[in-house]
This record gives sequence, structure tokens and C-alpha cells, in this order.
Amino acid sequence: MRRWNGWGDESVAFALNEDALAFLARRIGAGTPVVDAAFGQACARIGASRLPAHRLIDRGLIDTSPEVRLRNALGQSLPDWLRLRYGVIETAPDGVAYPESAQDVRELFDYARACGASVIAQGGGTSVAGHLTAPHGVQPVLAVNMTRFRQLHFLDTESQLATFGAGVFGPDLEAQLRARGYTLGHFPQSFEYSTLGGWIATRSSGQQSLRYGRIEQLFRGGSVETPAGTLDIPTFPASAAGTDLREMVLGSEGRLGILTEATVRVTPLPQYEAFHAVFFPDWTEAETAVRLVVQAGLSLSMLRLSNALETTTMLALAGHKKMISLLEGYLSLRGCKDGKCMLMVGVSGHKSLARAALREALALTLPHGGVHVGRYMGEKWKQNRFRNVYLRNAAWEHGYAIDTVETAVDWPRVEAMMHAVEAAAVGALALHGERVHTYTHLSHLYAQGASVYTTFVYRLAGDYASDLARWRALKRAASLAIVESGGTISHQHGVGSDHAPYLAAEKGELGISAMRALFAHFDPTQMMNPGKLLP
Amino acid sequence: MRRWNGWGDESVAFALNEDALAFLARRIGAGTPVVDAAFGQACARIGASRLPAHRLIDRGLIDTSPEVRLRNALGQSLPDWLRLRYGVIETAPDGVAYPESAQDVRELFDYARACGASVIAQGGGTSVAGHLTAPHGVQPVLAVNMTRFRQLHFLDTESQLATFGAGVFGPDLEAQLRARGYTLGHFPQSFEYSTLGGWIATRSSGQQSLRYGRIEQLFRGGSVETPAGTLDIPTFPASAAGTDLREMVLGSEGRLGILTEATVRVTPLPQYEAFHAVFFPDWTEAETAVRLVVQAGLSLSMLRLSNALETTTMLALAGHKKMISLLEGYLSLRGCKDGKCMLMVGVSGHKSLARAALREALALTLPHGGVHVGRYMGEKWKQNRFRNVYLRNAAWEHGYAIDTVETAVDWPRVEAMMHAVEAAAVGALALHGERVHTYTHLSHLYAQGASVYTTFVYRLAGDYASDLARWRALKRAASLAIVESGGTISHQHGVGSDHAPYLAAEKGELGISAMRALFAHFDPTQMMNPGKLLP
Repeated sequence: MRRWNGWGDESVAFALNEDALAFLARRIGAGTPVVDAAFGQACARIGASRLPAHRLIDRGLIDTSPEVRLRNALGQSLPDWLRLRYGVIETAPDGVAYPESAQDVRELFDYARACGASVIAQGGGTSVAGHLTAPHGVQPVLAVNMTRFRQLHFLDTESQLATFGAGVFGPDLEAQLRARGYTLGHFPQSFEYSTLGGWIATRSSGQQSLRYGRIEQLFRGGSVETPAGTLDIPTFPASAAGTDLREMVLGSEGRLGILTEATVRVTPLPQYEAFHAVFFPDWTEAETAVRLVVQAGLSLSMLRLSNALETTTMLALAGHKKMISLLEGYLSLRGCKDGKCMLMVGVSGHKSLARAALREALALTLPHGGVHVGRYMGEKWKQNRFRNVYLRNAAWEHGYAIDTVETAVDWPRVEAMMHAVEAAAVGALALHGERVHTYTHLSHLYAQGASVYTTFVYRLAGDYASDLARWRALKRAASLAIVESGGTISHQHGVGSDHAPYLAAEKGELGISAMRALFAHFDPTQMMNPGKLLP
Repeated sequence: MRRWNGWGDESVAFALNEDALAFLARRIGAGTPVVDAAFGQACARIGASRLPAHRLIDRGLIDTSPEVRLRNALGQSLPDWLRLRYGVIETAPDGVAYPESAQDVRELFDYARACGASVIAQGGGTSVAGHLTAPHGVQPVLAVNMTRFRQLHFLDTESQLATFGAGVFGPDLEAQLRARGYTLGHFPQSFEYSTLGGWIATRSSGQQSLRYGRIEQLFRGGSVETPAGTLDIPTFPASAAGTDLREMVLGSEGRLGILTEATVRVTPLPQYEAFHAVFFPDWTEAETAVRLVVQAGLSLSMLRLSNALETTTMLALAGHKKMISLLEGYLSLRGCKDGKCMLMVGVSGHKSLARAALREALALTLPHGGVHVGRYMGEKWKQNRFRNVYLRNAAWEHGYAIDTVETAVDWPRVEAMMHAVEAAAVGALALHGERVHTYTHLSHLYAQGASVYTTFVYRLAGDYASDLARWRALKRAASLAIVESGGTISHQHGVGSDHAPYLAAEKGELGISAMRALFAHFDPTQMMNPGKLLP
């Protein structure tokens, strides 16, 4: 069964080994485990449902039990975790609907409108930016869980388009396509539990977007139920006919309606796929090399560059002490010592073309001290690509919090951004007398610049208020560093509640008010996910 | 000097040879040349300016002379041509402003607001969809000519971004970049006279978009003056932060404001560029082959597939009778006879990679009867890529009208679309007792489908009313065929006035009203290009 207060399935554990714990203890001190609230305790914090009686409840379309409401109350952000782990459930939806058709969604809108309820659409509840929290207030809140919309309705192999119910989970979507020889190729770290509709509503990006594109490129059309009516978006290979309606839906975060069906671009399963690792002596060489590689426009599927501390951390956490020690010895001989940075290079597709692209990429790294160490580290990374996120559970159990922030900037600002975000976090928790272990990677590379993805590990205080204060201090400092360094407040996680205060820095007041006007057109009474996205 | 009633510079002529004229006479009958109205006659049709006196006029920022108003009154659509050639100037702007700064634009908005004038922004006036026509009515109309915004303000070679004044013409933009070793790579057929701002406002696509991307991909940020204020859009390599403001500007066709500055993605000038021709025995084989080539994701810069009649037409117009005859003999031996279709394949970039991609593409055409005939035809096409549009002048002088329509559809609908559009045009003019010479090419290819670009050649009646009636019948029939066959009303020309009646077929009433609400937010008094884009 899925964990109610952590990541993933209860049966899956990804332990921190002794060396990793010793490493963390050296970096930031030993953690003190916290006793989590029990599920029953947390349920008891949830008040009676304020939803008025209705045939939709009688029909079983809406579940008002505290258990289901709790399981759909929050996402996976750190403050969400704090609420769940400490059992401080301040708000929860008054009911959770499980529609199975667009007609069901329209009836839910009618019901919500009639009883003055807010509507929060959700897929797999993997938001790390507070998209799902029910607002405080006297109005009832209806969560609409879309995960029964999971079928592949149509696969057009000639146009390479697949139409799915928008609530389909990543693995289910890929399984349905794989059986027919196709893939979407969208693999965010949340892949196991996130949904197609969620990816579109939050402008998600997958780990192999270099080959497959971001969800913006994959989303080709669909159907959206909005309070003002149904918005049907046909598929065209391209169009110059005015405003692209897809772009109204992308990143709308449940503010204008609920996507029920989405048509996405798919491709035949790649004949060949491989992930290789390359080490560089330092960040400057590494960043220059990856910029040249991505600007060469080679057919790669992934580039992911870790800074020195992330490289050290990954090697410390890898286990296989002996092998890592041999690797480090070899790298040292080749000039990659303390400040070394690890690059993952992925290729997919036609075998000979993929290999040619890899060869070309490796050749471009050579003048910058790149040391190709083959597939071992890359394949390890691939094996663990969706398991790493379970580390948050393991860290918590040892008294550590793990959080991340991410942004994207043009190349001249990348390195400064990395330093600014890391320093801001360290400075913020220093005021709380705590150290932060921070490390960064460039998760997605573009000719124009890169995403900058920073992880923070720090100790839990052991009580809700203190831990919330620590998180707030760190999040605020890191977010301010992002906007002050000219980055977008999110490259791949979306805005939700946590990033909303920083949105005006990039959109301007006029941009913000235009978004507001656009959403209000589809949702005149503003019942859709109020308070999210727009500050 | 630029022609006031036709395409391009007066000094450039591109004659139709005897064979081409004989070919046309056989297809649709001999044309009867029309006597064009003189510039002075047309000017005399323009009434006195209704703009009230103002210091902006005194300062010379606004020109109210009939000559300048006439030269900025219309675009290059066939009805625009009919008005100019026959001297039937029904409406013209009351003045043409030539701002040089964002401040000038803001002052022009203040002035327009104060005197109740409509504002029509224009770049090079190359619209073929009626974007620029002043509306009938009692309100004065102010044209804002943006071509003094032409400078390269900043080139960031690290991020491969260039910031230009938005009114820069294609050749000027490329010249400024070329001097620094870069290219934008955006080459619509209108390249000589169209502007960066116009490309963005109409979602333009260039001939090598397969390599460089459509303008949507190239446009990375900028500054827009709107009646509600200035919208500044920063550049990010990618963002998940809510609605993408660039998408509000793209395809807005002057309805929300005027782009003053745009930052675009540029790339180093390609080391190598080549265009090759491949012939196929028939359309079915050709279409299948190009679909497989484009879906293979090779690094090509262009794919352009002509149907049989376009292939015949291009060979007839090529001159070099002897050489073409030898070519056709060779092709016939290789199985490409009457129904043969010509494909242009372009490659650009790193020489060895470009050649490898070309080899791979050619290999994919072989099982479909593809006959590679080398670079000659391709290089000829390249030489004439911006000259072909001058053929419209030459045809007119012999009593023929040339018009085009274009759309894009997913692969399963491509062939049916081509036949439907051609048949609709033929049927429409049959009712006028005229034949139409129609031919089609797929101008832009995507994994998902293709643009379908159809040309019509037919005889002029010799008077304005009859020729307008012929055009209306043809345009309406072709446009209805497009929407009834599931295509977008424009892949690359935009909507303007001529396509506006067909827009709701793809956007739906809700989509149309959402666009209206969005534009109204930036332009509350709806003074910006009223009546265009939205029906």
C-alpha cells in the first residue's frame, strides 16, 4: 500500500548505509529520529465534512471518510511531510470525488457551484510545491481525484499520437504504450506516482527531455472541463492560427479546469539505450564542456552534471566501497581529484546513430579534461532513477530532512546561481544554529542555459513548529536567491503555494493580471484551486 | 524602390519564359493583361486624414500624406493586390507613425486613445491574410510602422541569444548576425520584406524550420508595449512557472500590443549547407518515404515534397529545356514517369554529421523508389527561394492571378486534404467558367504530420468586381475544404481578416472567447487592430 506520510509504497525501502550516515554526521551532525504520528491520530484531526448531502455522495462518486480525505489532503513538499509526519493536519478536503467520465466532472462542477465549494483537481498527489492544500476558510473543499481516467483510448501510429485519460500514472501509461511498441519517454523523478494530467498542468520535464522534449512539446491536444464549458483542443502538427490553446492549459495548475483527456506525441521504443559517466577535474571545465556538447545539437537523450559536492555525495551513498575507491584512484591519476564533477550522458534510439552521437559528445569533453569511465555508473544511476526519491524516507527515519529547489537560467548565470542558492540555504539555517549539506546538479541542459537543481540535507528539530520554521527560512532564502539571480522560480516543479510569492518577479504585475484574467474567463466564480499559482 | 502594387523591388523582374506561358495557356487558357491603376490615381482615392492635429504630427513622427498612407494601407494578399492594381482603395490609415523608441509607442497609444483612433502595427507589410486593412467606420486609424526598430542590441554568444529591435527586416537581421558569425535561420518566403516582430505576431515558419525551429521556438523573450502597460518577458532556457507569457504574444496579430524588442535564439553559421533533390514514382510512395524520414529524427534542415503537378510545373518553369529533358529521360528509366514527385532535402551544420544525415535519409527513400539526382535541382531551388515570389508579378502582367492557401494536418489526413483543397478550388471557379491550375507541396514536415501548401493559378477577369468575386469563391471553397478536412486554417500565414471566419472551427467558441478576454485585458478599449484574428 502507498505510504500515507512519505514517498512511495510501504514495501519499498532504500536504506542509508553506515558510510552514508557517517558522511552525513560529519557534514551536519548526527540526526535524532522523530516519532511519527499514527494514521489514526492524524485522521482524528480532520473535522466533519462540510459538504451538503447530494446524490453524488449517495452514488459513491464522492467519498467523505476521514481516511480518504487525509490520503488526498497533501502532496510531497517538505511542509506537507511535516504536517503528515507530525500529524498536524490543518486543512483537508471535505470530500474526494473519483469521477470516471467528463460528464461526472461536469456534475461535480455543478454540485460545487451550488454549494459554494472550491475544487482541487489531483492526479497522483506528488506535488512538491503545495498545489493540493485545501485553503483555510468557511467554504467546503472538494478534491477531484482523476486517477480513474487511465485508459489509452487511441493510438495513431502513423502520426505517432496517443490519446489517454488524463489521470493515467506514468508506469501505467508506459506499460500500455510498451505493449504496442511505443514510449512517451517522459520520466520525471516522480514518474511512479505522477500522472499525465499533472505533468501537463504543472509543465513537467522528464529526465530524458533532451530526446523526448518537455511535456509542452509532448502535449498535442485534449479535452478540458472548465466551469465555463468544455475546451476541446484538436491536434495539428503546427499552426499559425492565433493563440495556442494548449498553452492556456499548460502550467494552469488546476486554475481553469480539469483535463480529462490528453493526446501526446509518442515514439517507437528505442532500439538502443545507454547511460555513460564522464568525470571532469572541476566545475569550470565541466560546465564549459556540457555547454559545448548541448550546443552541438547531438542526438543525446540526457545530460546531467553534478557539482563536486553532489559527486562526492553520490559516491559516498553508492555503497560498493572498494569499487568506488578504485574508481577514485583511477580518476585521480587522470587529473580528477577533490573538485571532480560527474556528468551522466544518455543516448537512445537507432544504435549506430546513438553511438555516433555519444562518440562525438565524448570527443567534445576531452579538451576540458573529461574522463570517460564507461557505462557502470550510468547504468547504476538508471537503475536507481526512481528509487533515489525513497532516500527521503530513509533520511527522515534517521532524523534528517531532504528538500530541493530548482530553477533555470541562461548560461552566463548558471554558476553564480548555483553558488547563490547553496549559500542562501547555508546562511538561512546558520541563523538556526544548523548546518546544511547542499549539493547541486544541472538536471536539464539547453543550448540557451540549464536548470539548476539543488538539494539540501539538514537535521530535524523534532517538533512541528521548529521544523516548519527551519524549512521556511531555508525555502525563503533559496527562493529569493533564485529570483535575485535572474532565474525562473521553477523549471520543473511548478508554482503551487510555495512559489507563488516569487512569481511576479518574472511575470511582472501585468503578466500576473493577464493570467488572472485568463483563468477568470474559464472559471468566473474562481472556484478552481483558489490561492494556488497566483499570489 | 519597393513596388507599391506588387511584390518586391521595382528593379527585380523574374520573367515567365515562352514555354511556361504556353504551359499555362494549355492548362487554363491564355491570359489577358490588365492595365494597372497609376500610383497617383490610387492616391487620389484616399480621403483627407481624420487624425486631429497633435505635436506628434508636428514632430514628424506621424506622416499623413496620401502617398505614405497608400504605401502602408495593405498587404500582399490577393484582394490587397486587386485593390492596388485596380486602384480601388476603400480604406487606408489616416496616418503612419514611425516610432523609434518604446516611449514613442507609448505616446502614440496615448494619442490614439485620446482621439479614439484604432492602431494597426506593421512591419514589412507582407501579410497575405488581410492583417493590415484599416477597418471601415468613423474612427480614425493610425498605422504604426515599426521598421525603425532595427538594431541588434545585444548578442550573448554563450547563451546563443540575440536581442533585436522588433521591426528589423529579415536580410538586415541576418546581415547583423552574419557579421558576428551567427544566424537566426528563419527564412519564410517573405524573408526579404518581413520583420522579426511580424514573424512573432503571426507565428511564422521558415523554410529550414526543421533545423532552426518555428518562430515559436526561436522567440525567447522581449518587450511589448500594450495599452495596459509594458509587458517585459525575461529569457529562461525553460520554465514551469505557470503560463508562458511568450505564448500570449505569439500569434496575437497586433491585438494586444506592439512588440518593440525581441530576444531570439541564434546559432553559429553552419559549416556546411546543401540541398539535394530526390524523385519518387508517385505520391503514395513519396509521402510514405518523407514520413519515415522525418520520423527518423535525422538532423536535416529541410524537407519539401511537391506533388506531381507541382513537380511538372516546376520543371516547366525552370527553363533549361534540354537539361530538364535529359533529367526526365533518366528519371523515366528509373521508374519516375508522369506521376513523379520531387522532394527537396536540405542539410546544414557540421559537414560530416550533415552528410551522414543525408545518407541516412536517402537510404530511407530507396525502398520507396526514391531516385537521388544530386544537388543541381536543390541548389537551383535555393538560388530562387526568395525570387519565386516575384513570379506573382510576372503572372499578373500576363493576365494571371496566383494565390496560395496552406494548412497542416496529421499524417492520416494529408493526402485527402491535398485533394480536397485542390478540388474545392477547381469546383469554385468552374462555376465562374474558369479553369484553375492547382498544385501542392508539403512545405514543412513533422513527425506528427505536414503542412499542405496549395497554389492556384487562374485567369484575371479584367475588372475589380469580377476578380474579387473569383477570389472570394476560390478562397471560401478552399478554406471550407481545409476546416472540413480537419486542418488548421493556417500553418504559417496567420489569420488576419481572411481566415477569421474559419477560426472557430478549431478553437471552439470557448477558445475564441478566451482569446478575446486575454486581448481585452491588455487592450481594454479594443483599439488594437480591431476586427483582425477574431471573427
